Amino acid sequence: MVPFVYDVFCKIPLAPFYFLCRWRSALLWRAFFTTAMVAVVLRALIDFCKSDKCGLFGKGGLIMFDVTSGYITYHLVDLPPVIILGVLGGILGSLYNFFLDKVLRLYNFINEKGKKYKLLLAAVVTICTSCCLFGLPWIASCKPCPSDTEEACPSIGRSGNFKKYQCAMNEYNDLASLFFNTNDDTIRNLYSAGTDDEFHISSILIFFGASYFLGIFSYGLALPSGLFVPVILTGAAYGRLVGLLIGSQSTLDHGLFAVLGSAALLGGSMRMTVSVCVVILELTNNLLMLPLVMLVLLISKTVADAFNANVYDLLVKLKGFPYLEGYVEPYMRQLSVSDVVAGPLQMFSGIEKVGHIVHVLQTTGHNGFPVVDEPPFSDSPVLYGLVLRAHLLVLLRKKDFIHNRTASGLDASKHFLPDDFAKRGSGKHDRIEEIELSAGEMEMFVDLHPFTNTSPYTVVETMSLAKAHVLFREVGLRHLLVLPKSSKRAPVVGILTRHDFMPEHILGLHPFLFKTRWKKVRFGKSAFTNLL
Amino acid sequence: MVPFVYDVFCKIPLAPFYFLCRWRSALLWRAFFTTAMVAVVLRALIDFCKSDKCGLFGKGGLIMFDVTSGYITYHLVDLPPVIILGVLGGILGSLYNFFLDKVLRLYNFINEKGKKYKLLLAAVVTICTSCCLFGLPWIASCKPCPSDTEEACPSIGRSGNFKKYQCAMNEYNDLASLFFNTNDDTIRNLYSAGTDDEFHISSILIFFGASYFLGIFSYGLALPSGLFVPVILTGAAYGRLVGLLIGSQSTLDHGLFAVLGSAALLGGSMRMTVSVCVVILELTNNLLMLPLVMLVLLISKTVADAFNANVYDLLVKLKGFPYLEGYVEPYMRQLSVSDVVAGPLQMFSGIEKVGHIVHVLQTTGHNGFPVVDEPPFSDSPVLYGLVLRAHLLVLLRKKDFIHNRTASGLDASKHFLPDDFAKRGSGKHDRIEEIELSAGEMEMFVDLHPFTNTSPYTVVETMSLAKAHVLFREVGLRHLLVLPKSSKRAPVVGILTRHDFMPEHILGLHPFLFKTRWKKVRFGKSAFTNLL
Repeated sequence: MVPFVYDVFCKIPLAPFYFLCRWRSALLWRAFFTTAMVAVVLRALIDFCKSDKCGLFGKGGLIMFDVTSGYITYHLVDLPPVIILGVLGGILGSLYNFFLDKVLRLYNFINEKGKKYKLLLAAVVTICTSCCLFGLPWIASCKPCPSDTEEACPSIGRSGNFKKYQCAMNEYNDLASLFFNTNDDTIRNLYSAGTDDEFHISSILIFFGASYFLGIFSYGLALPSGLFVPVILTGAAYGRLVGLLIGSQSTLDHGLFAVLGSAALLGGSMRMTVSVCVVILELTNNLLMLPLVMLVLLISKTVADAFNANVYDLLVKLKGFPYLEGYVEPYMRQLSVSDVVAGPLQMFSGIEKVGHIVHVLQTTGHNGFPVVDEPPFSDSPVLYGLVLRAHLLVLLRKKDFIHNRTASGLDASKHFLPDDFAKRGSGKHDRIEEIELSAGEMEMFVDLHPFTNTSPYTVVETMSLAKAHVLFREVGLRHLLVLPKSSKRAPVVGILTRHDFMPEHILGLHPFLFKTRWKKVRFGKSAFTNLL
Repeated sequence: MVPFVYDVFCKIPLAPFYFLCRWRSALLWRAFFTTAMVAVVLRALIDFCKSDKCGLFGKGGLIMFDVTSGYITYHLVDLPPVIILGVLGGILGSLYNFFLDKVLRLYNFINEKGKKYKLLLAAVVTICTSCCLFGLPWIASCKPCPSDTEEACPSIGRSGNFKKYQCAMNEYNDLASLFFNTNDDTIRNLYSAGTDDEFHISSILIFFGASYFLGIFSYGLALPSGLFVPVILTGAAYGRLVGLLIGSQSTLDHGLFAVLGSAALLGGSMRMTVSVCVVILELTNNLLMLPLVMLVLLISKTVADAFNANVYDLLVKLKGFPYLEGYVEPYMRQLSVSDVVAGPLQMFSGIEKVGHIVHVLQTTGHNGFPVVDEPPFSDSPVLYGLVLRAHLLVLLRKKDFIHNRTASGLDASKHFLPDDFAKRGSGKHDRIEEIELSAGEMEMFVDLHPFTNTSPYTVVETMSLAKAHVLFREVGLRHLLVLPKSSKRAPVVGILTRHDFMPEHILGLHPFLFKTRWKKVRFGKSAFTNLL
């Protein structure tokens, strides 16, 4: 599941999991060891439970949907249906993203109104979903039980694939069988080979429609829900539907169609390629299926990329995270760093007046400030380093000030413990408004030298923006100082943050670039973001 | 095999394959697609050849050594033998590296004397190897053929696992069976379960000794040979040997001992952990073996790391490649960039005299030079960029010079085709000695501006060396310009290359660091270099 984890956590820069995205070696080894242990223990437990000692616990196996038994053969005539499946899957996937975006904007709008509205929204959607799930199976007609099945038919109770619902004995409701199982069981049913006649086309159509839209409406509510399994489920139904529509034109099993349908919808919505291949391989343990899965993925991804971005990019955008892409936009090569640095630059002297620091912290939201040493402390103004807002707040809180602008000679850092500068937990950082200083204290000074990072990364102002972007992203920076080319100017001309590399910011400053903006190289982009 | 490829090519920076080491996405996708196609075609061909249509071709399968049939059980009492196996494997592996290093130094010494010596060396070693292989089986005593085998016994001819050699009918020579098969078949024999009595302890001992030393002596000759398969083979023999020595103390199968022995020797010699696990898993397709393999690897690697570096690091060092490690040595944090920059710095003016360029190129081996604009072309000396030796040679060869030190106004780059500056193939680059210039031409000038990279990466001289190392490695640089802190000095104070980050160079400049040099964090280091 490592590729899956990578995709999910690395597309959305959530702080607690983002560290997984840089392949730290010790971490990788630990993850590998843990995974191996889990696999071994799981297998041992499954073996232990084989003789029905554990009830429902222990069903299934290491391979989640080990269903497409034996051999799969396919010929050239099977390619056209598979291509159609891929194209439609791409369109459906991009529509899924489109609707999800609209629905999430609506939900955000409602959720922002208050907790009451949040709860009400969740309740309304939950009730609608329940009504749908219980009402829709009434539409489906009853089917007679197959004679050659090992399972109980019809089944009444928690588990079982042939739900009786409103039908007579020896009959089952196929739509109820799809709705009233866990998602995993339903996917397994849809993936199963040799079950072409088990489901009626109208039931599959209704189930597909319902799970498509319920999946969209369930995401973003104030309740735990996901994207991955609903899309796999909807895709399986979609694949079955295509299989039923094509009918005898293709020799492929409908279970295989379901697997390919999942791949098509995943490719169309999440645009992951390699990782989806691996996930599908892990789920079905069938290597022979791989070329078809790859074909479907390539087609659906290409089709969907023509319409909109992948679902994770949409979510990142909706959340307002400034996500720095791994590729460089071509127009960045035409710009230099000085073209995007916006003023005015706030900087501090090595020994700075407390009042000035407080004023700057109150009036700006910047998180880093250059520190410049000026005469008489140096021959000419020179850059000393970069000081962080968080560290300045610690200094102000401690109130370890000096009376005049002279080097104290004492190392002020001795009054602090390393723990004072430790990173605060999320949402726990200090705020300038909480620090109260008297008028006298405001007139005092503070020596910033011991608290300044003297090795900030720097670029010269004539540096190509594209190359600065590479530096910023590869080294994983938050601040990048811009130095002047000519030595006659101030020692720092600006500071670059993630926002300065955002296409919106750059194109806002240089609207003429819209004209020359080259078309995004779609494949290059998507391939990068879907590294694994 | 991707992890294997990664390990092999990324530890040794060979130009043609080094590009694989940065996980370029489009490349990854292509590699994945190709691998999948290979797997599918291979499986199809194996299926086709199942009914003995293809002779010897098509034997084997996707899983190379699919031999440890059925279940493997192990208990706590089996741990001590496995731990012993790991410890001894670590010692043997580090000895392997030690001997290999000595032998390679000797071979390099001989090979440098000329082609004749090279050929002679290869011939001598080949003849000795042949004598060994044909002579040693005479020592082994004949064993009666097992009654319950499906294979022909004794076998005469190219294939077969029970070689007759000098034995009577119904007998076979077990040592000859090991020597006179392909490496793959021998490994498969050694890995096979339920063959504990097939080999005599003396035969295994002789075979282990022979393959251990022949593996060392065969590498580095002027003939194609490898490291990986010999080590796996030797390890398998070593594992069998330990299994035979431990005898009835352990319930583990000797085939399993052979697999663990391979892992131990691989871990001891190559120090790869995760990738060896994956390789062994791919070779044997047995997940239950994984915890034991991991244990053995961890032990053998830890033991071997106490003695010397891994075999690839030794090879890189022997070849003299300046390999930049991915981790930062702790003492680098105490140094700033200016502590390692060595002078004198060679730089050029924007419009430079041809004679000066020729002189600098002749007297230094540098590959990049800073270009500085001086008055009257600018108010004060400013850094213009970085020009490459290769591009200067192209300029000199073209002889497109100007008569005096004034901006020509014409764009000299128009006289060149992009192809003129294309990267030459390996060993085909221009050399300054090949360019002939008259005395008159030497007095002329050349405008370097159009041929200078105006966006070189830069650091300020007070930058921490550790942080410069991160920048250098993450962005993949060859040259890093060092800017002065004070604006009153020359606009560039130095240029950092890979050599300046080498521990030997740094510790040579600052010998006092030897005293404070911290012990390398072995695990951290090895884990990083063995990323996959």
